[in-house]
Amino acid sequence: MGSWTRPSCKCCTSRPVQPLVALELSEDINMETKRWLMFRIQAEKTAGGAELMVHPGEDDDGNMLLVSASRHVLLRTAEVLGLYKLYKDGSMISFSYRDRRNFENSAERQFIVLRTLENIKAVDEKYIPGYPTKSLYPGEAIFNRLQKTKLLHAFYPLHHEEMLNELESHWYSHRKLTLQPIDSICRYYGGSIAMYFSFLEFFTCSLAPMAIFGTMVFALSMGTVDKCILFSVFNIIWSTVIMELWKRHSFVLAYTWGTLQMNSQFEEPRMGYKGPMGTNPITHRRQPYYPTWKRKVKIWLVSVPVLCLFLAFSLYGMFIFLRLEAWVKALYSENEDCWGCMLYIPGILHTLCITALNVCYKEIAEVLTEWENHRLESSFQNHLTVKVLVFRFVNCFSALFYISFYLQDLELLRKKLASLLILTQIINQFIETLLPYFYKTLIGKETGLKNCAVENAPEIDKIKPQGQKTTFPGMFDEYMELFVQFGYVSLFSCIYPLSAILIILNNITEIRTDALKLCHLFRKPFISPAANIGVWQTAFETIGFLSVITNCLLISISPQVKEYCAENNVTSNSVLIWAIGVEHALLAIKIILAFVIPDIPQWVKLKIDRVEYQSLQALKHKLFEEGKGFGGEVEEKEGWQGGITWPDSADSSLHASNRQLNLL
Amino acid sequence: MGSWTRPSCKCCTSRPVQPLVALELSEDINMETKRWLMFRIQAEKTAGGAELMVHPGEDDDGNMLLVSASRHVLLRTAEVLGLYKLYKDGSMISFSYRDRRNFENSAERQFIVLRTLENIKAVDEKYIPGYPTKSLYPGEAIFNRLQKTKLLHAFYPLHHEEMLNELESHWYSHRKLTLQPIDSICRYYGGSIAMYFSFLEFFTCSLAPMAIFGTMVFALSMGTVDKCILFSVFNIIWSTVIMELWKRHSFVLAYTWGTLQMNSQFEEPRMGYKGPMGTNPITHRRQPYYPTWKRKVKIWLVSVPVLCLFLAFSLYGMFIFLRLEAWVKALYSENEDCWGCMLYIPGILHTLCITALNVCYKEIAEVLTEWENHRLESSFQNHLTVKVLVFRFVNCFSALFYISFYLQDLELLRKKLASLLILTQIINQFIETLLPYFYKTLIGKETGLKNCAVENAPEIDKIKPQGQKTTFPGMFDEYMELFVQFGYVSLFSCIYPLSAILIILNNITEIRTDALKLCHLFRKPFISPAANIGVWQTAFETIGFLSVITNCLLISISPQVKEYCAENNVTSNSVLIWAIGVEHALLAIKIILAFVIPDIPQWVKLKIDRVEYQSLQALKHKLFEEGKGFGGEVEEKEGWQGGITWPDSADSSLHASNRQLNLL
Repeated sequence: MGSWTRPSCKCCTSRPVQPLVALELSEDINMETKRWLMFRIQAEKTAGGAELMVHPGEDDDGNMLLVSASRHVLLRTAEVLGLYKLYKDGSMISFSYRDRRNFENSAERQFIVLRTLENIKAVDEKYIPGYPTKSLYPGEAIFNRLQKTKLLHAFYPLHHEEMLNELESHWYSHRKLTLQPIDSICRYYGGSIAMYFSFLEFFTCSLAPMAIFGTMVFALSMGTVDKCILFSVFNIIWSTVIMELWKRHSFVLAYTWGTLQMNSQFEEPRMGYKGPMGTNPITHRRQPYYPTWKRKVKIWLVSVPVLCLFLAFSLYGMFIFLRLEAWVKALYSENEDCWGCMLYIPGILHTLCITALNVCYKEIAEVLTEWENHRLESSFQNHLTVKVLVFRFVNCFSALFYISFYLQDLELLRKKLASLLILTQIINQFIETLLPYFYKTLIGKETGLKNCAVENAPEIDKIKPQGQKTTFPGMFDEYMELFVQFGYVSLFSCIYPLSAILIILNNITEIRTDALKLCHLFRKPFISPAANIGVWQTAFETIGFLSVITNCLLISISPQVKEYCAENNVTSNSVLIWAIGVEHALLAIKIILAFVIPDIPQWVKLKIDRVEYQSLQALKHKLFEEGKGFGGEVEEKEGWQGGITWPDSADSSLHASNRQLNLL
Repeated sequence: MGSWTRPSCKCCTSRPVQPLVALELSEDINMETKRWLMFRIQAEKTAGGAELMVHPGEDDDGNMLLVSASRHVLLRTAEVLGLYKLYKDGSMISFSYRDRRNFENSAERQFIVLRTLENIKAVDEKYIPGYPTKSLYPGEAIFNRLQKTKLLHAFYPLHHEEMLNELESHWYSHRKLTLQPIDSICRYYGGSIAMYFSFLEFFTCSLAPMAIFGTMVFALSMGTVDKCILFSVFNIIWSTVIMELWKRHSFVLAYTWGTLQMNSQFEEPRMGYKGPMGTNPITHRRQPYYPTWKRKVKIWLVSVPVLCLFLAFSLYGMFIFLRLEAWVKALYSENEDCWGCMLYIPGILHTLCITALNVCYKEIAEVLTEWENHRLESSFQNHLTVKVLVFRFVNCFSALFYISFYLQDLELLRKKLASLLILTQIINQFIETLLPYFYKTLIGKETGLKNCAVENAPEIDKIKPQGQKTTFPGMFDEYMELFVQFGYVSLFSCIYPLSAILIILNNITEIRTDALKLCHLFRKPFISPAANIGVWQTAFETIGFLSVITNCLLISISPQVKEYCAENNVTSNSVLIWAIGVEHALLAIKIILAFVIPDIPQWVKLKIDRVEYQSLQALKHKLFEEGKGFGGEVEEKEGWQGGITWPDSADSSLHASNRQLNLL
């Protein structure tokens, strides 16, 4: 078995080393390049290295490197990254290497290694050693460059088998309906994934009162319109309250995970961030710098118009589809025998067109967001999400909006909604039952066998299969699914009141499927710290506001209201005025509710303020200590002139010490 | 001349002492009480004193005390109060006494003395010495108690004649149209007053584009409806943009004045704050403590219902007035000769009724807000302002809303609006010309004479007249005036487009009148630090949102639109739908604009983040220094099990030091 090549410091030796991250190099990689890479990974910081440990790997192809890190390097880097940790007094403060014994430590080892690797910069290499055609510029992130030139196929964190088994047994392996072990998920998979599962759980639980109220209202003997109005009002208040409660809950989660206060300005820039080297005005570290105004120009003059263009395409596509459908229907009614299958063609064409647009747009959105050159990974993700989200939302809901407000065919809307919900559920249930089956029969047996039988097999044989899995695609599609659910349940709630029940059933299985997918179908993703669900919070809140408008409109155009008007001699004009009045009142209630419920729980605020207070006191202390002895006398400007004469005798030493003070 | 009684420390002597604050005691005050008060003012902190300097005063009645403070007491207290000051590196940080030579000092002397006096607490006195019937409880603020028992008539800061003259000459004495010396105003009168004058100036300047656009649009040859729509859209965007720009501007002001970061949690509680003594969870100082939930219960279960009750009274009064008016008109049309003057009676009665309600409600609002027991002065002021503001708004605008949307009589609305605006202006102009006249001829001469002739008159003769002036009533009425102006100009802008010009003319004189009033008509108020215009920001933004609704409605019900519909065969229903569509679009634009314009300017954010970063680094440093040597070993939990064996030889000392680290 090969040995770990360690950085030149002499510590952390003679103990078993757990490989943390695997690098998969190109199969025909030049040995010189591999040696250079290994050198850079393990070299000292002063030589432009990462001070990590690297192991050449023992696989048959020889194209794998395993990276680990000594504890003190991990801890030093934790301090540089500004990670927040639980201090012995129960508050969360920025980790300090010198004071490490007073911090509770948890596992962000792979995250730290990732950040360290990403930050290895070219020093004086003009090209990648071994490949003179592949140039490097000083300060370029070499991992980014290696990935772009396909010399580095992938790098991914490795599973910790024991911890994974432990996590699985508490998460989804058992048959009972329990809450998820969110904190363990956070420790193993990081903030952003734990945040998603926590939100999924929270959302599902908070659908329960809606489901109960929905069934109760529709069991009562009331007029249909009254029921609709009652249910809509409940739904609107419900959506506001749950989003506010979630905000509070996510603050608590982020605080206890130490991600709430990670000031993004202290963070290291993301790997793809380009720009001439400058000094970070806050930390005074040397970092690339790209002006904000340039990014804003790119966003407003290129990205936004491109989005609008694609939206126009999509809407235009919908209208063509609707015309085509009408035309085919007309054709069919003329000539009924042979054109039966033709009826489905417009729908299929439209779906194909939307799918193509979706794929194409996502590619373009990624390129655009990369080009916008965001400094932080979170900012990059948020901008990408917004771009794709708006487009998907329009694609998902434009047909429903068209049916409800242009055609005003509420019966068709109800059918469409029910079919969408039930279809989603069936597909999900199908996956839910099929996936574990597939996993257990086909893949599970194979790896299970390996694990049990060859307990002392070379480490590399356990690592290899992990690399063969597909890359984790991120949480976007999972959030999108919840977002669409929330849209169905909020925007058209008065039309189809049973949606909450269907969604609850769906989400209970959803949690297990998602967990299983994460643990076994994909490569383990790197931890990414998250203080909240980012733009999704705004997206869900926007749906909440839109739902007020749609529900009021739906009620005012419902056939029952029209009948009622006809019976009671009420003009449609006054109905409309009523609907607008109610809509504005509900919007006002929503805004007041959002304002009245505090975003941050009191105890979290107190703890943060306490640390802020202590920090300021400490800063004063430090500045004083540093400035002691050489703060020159400030020129004297007498501010205490005139007035009543002070009668006592002078005390010149203190007198002098007070001289610097100007007006005070 | 009497001598200053100084605190027991030996510093800051043999220099002329400027009296800072005057206390006016009851004329027949017991000498024992006076002596006790003087003792408590000058005693050491450990004896429950304030460590200030006190002068028995030399007036004929002997009921005046002059208070001053030595520099080092002022500076120490500045640190305790957490005042932010400009540090030598150009950033604003919390003042540190030890490091005082590196801070730029400005004048908050009177503010500091006020806070110190307010915080003198009863120690073991059971009653006010000299008045055994007037009880005291331990920890009661004695200044609060003395004021309540009428033993202390007033206490107020004293003018600094030179600084005041200097300020006046740059502010309003000259005839040129220049910007105000906002920073000097802040230094002399404090943040909240300077913030008002800055806002007044900003608001007046930002009306200019609106006035220009208004005249331009109405000079164009377009249809009336088109003009209205164009002007409304401009107005709506304008109101959003100026409020956002003001927010940014006020951030810069507050940052440079050091009031932006004054964390309210570090502040000392206000004088009237009651509650059992507890430990402040943030600063760990002993302070009274009153739970937040009790305050919330009081607000929602008592204060809000009382407000609603008064609103109901006021609206009910308006309806009675309208009925009475209709009845009187009917009576008049029957019997035209003798009832001429009767026509004005309902209006007069209504005005009297509204005035009575206003006065009565303000008293009740003050009592309620005091009873709510707010911890901070700013919070108290905000809650009081909101209570009175909502009531006044309804009183001011309910008649206009009634005329425009219930009667739909836009001609009457235009007349009413014009008369209100012109009336306001005439009254203001009248005051503006009359006030300086009165001041110069009657009061000015008298004091001017005194000042010039008797240059060396006893200090007390200059102080006495200051106490005879009326107390400064606060900025509420001034802000209310601007708020009503903003309401006229925004809510009904499409009806009366020239309002902006009238308001600009009015406000140019308004600045001078307000400044003169502040400098000469009232007693100098104590400085109160302000980070923004508080609830007024929200109030103005709310008007901005309301204006979208009113303008869209006004246009849709205007006679021109009705004519247009009749001519072009458009149903009123579709006009309404259009209006709603436009309204929602405009609201969306407003929200997006408010979202896109960042609240804090980039450079301010950078400076704040830099200090936050430094503070955190300093805290780590301090915690480490404190914990050095006695942070016990954390029990070992091995997280580095399994995996590849590290081959090199052991380095046991470093090995041991790494043991405490759990999973990382």
